[in-house]
Amino acid sequence: MTLSIRNQLPGTVLGIASGEVMSTVAVRLAGGQEITAAITVEAVNDLGIKEGSPVRVLMKSTEVALATGTIDGLSIRNRIPGTVVAVATGGAMAGVKVAVAGGELTAAVTKDAAAELGLAAGSEVTALVKSTEVALAAER
Amino acid sequence: MTLSIRNQLPGTVLGIASGEVMSTVAVRLAGGQEITAAITVEAVNDLGIKEGSPVRVLMKSTEVALATGTIDGLSIRNRIPGTVVAVATGGAMAGVKVAVAGGELTAAVTKDAAAELGLAAGSEVTALVKSTEVALAAER
Amino acid sequence: MTLSIRNQLPGTVLGIASGEVMSTVAVRLAGGQEITAAITVEAVNDLGIKEGSPVRVLMKSTEVALATGTIDGLSIRNRIPGTVVAVATGGAMAGVKVAVAGGELTAAVTKDAAAELGLAAGSEVTALVKSTEVALAAER
Repeated sequence: MTLSIRNQLPGTVLGIASGEVMSTVAVRLAGGQEITAAITVEAVNDLGIKEGSPVRVLMKSTEVALATGTIDGLSIRNRIPGTVVAVATGGAMAGVKVAVAGGELTAAVTKDAAAELGLAAGSEVTALVKSTEVALAAER
Repeated sequence: MTLSIRNQLPGTVLGIASGEVMSTVAVRLAGGQEITAAITVEAVNDLGIKEGSPVRVLMKSTEVALATGTIDGLSIRNRIPGTVVAVATGGAMAGVKVAVAGGELTAAVTKDAAAELGLAAGSEVTALVKSTEVALAAER
Repeated sequence: MTLSIRNQLPGTVLGIASGEVMSTVAVRLAGGQEITAAITVEAVNDLGIKEGSPVRVLMKSTEVALATGTIDGLSIRNRIPGTVVAVATGGAMAGVKVAVAGGELTAAVTKDAAAELGLAAGSEVTALVKSTEVALAAER
């Protein structure tokens, strides 16, 4: 199976907290960053994951935001620092490739956002992804 | 590979339109519904999909909204009619299972939304998913 | 039409920029804020919207992030300042209601995020929503 989801980073489950419907799964990426995924309790059970399980963190490009400044007091759990490698600009959207520890991410942001942030190869950015937008794949 | 993504429906690519950065891929589901996925051009190339390719449409539960009334004048492309099978309610969120032609979907909506719509087993609903939230998997 | 999408704010289209596949639609909310929605070109055509068209901006709760600090250098286009009215906490997630100019928003964030930000009734926050997460409904 090949996925359209651009951003796939390997990691290990650190812990799982579950409510009635949703679970938050903390993952340590191979690159060292910590990621939280908010997935359904049912998904956790189906994946059969627990502390120590190897997983792949999946994040669609359209779900990745970028910040160039300092981030403080933000509900978005997942913050992956990196350096812009390339920017491809279309009529409405821009695809931004970011080198991060342990891999590469693609963010699809509006053309206007890319212009306002002055994104270009070499820009230091932080990729931001809301926990509800993070999916997990379990290797079997 | 097992995915946390609850909603996976098989289908066939009807057509692909591409810009510089983004592509829209139209898919006919096995259940007959038509789905549009907005994914990166790069993803289309990596998947190697074209008209007629078999794919699986992937939609995270947190990306699925539900409507109980008639839908008119809405930008959300993907509308899958179905019947609620079960509702599980937590402290903040509710997980709603919906039987649709060709499979079953899970929607993670707020507890308040489930209550206001009066969702219960037997409710007729339409599952709504924005094109930018739809990922694709190609079988190889 | 009854939608599970909690966040529905009325506004007027300011302008539309289109690429081959995606369009960005700028909307002035009744509360005065400016919102950008990244939707497919096809959706723009189907809605039949143009400058001056009345629309409703739709944002799923799971797509709304919250910031308590200053926001600077962020690709996320949509920033709606407001005041927390209530926080409902579940096992993994929290539902946060925010009063904003012209209406009310609900954000579904992780319980941990709500705790770390110290969110409670009276907290000043900015609701953040990525353009790709914003849908539109045309008033007819």
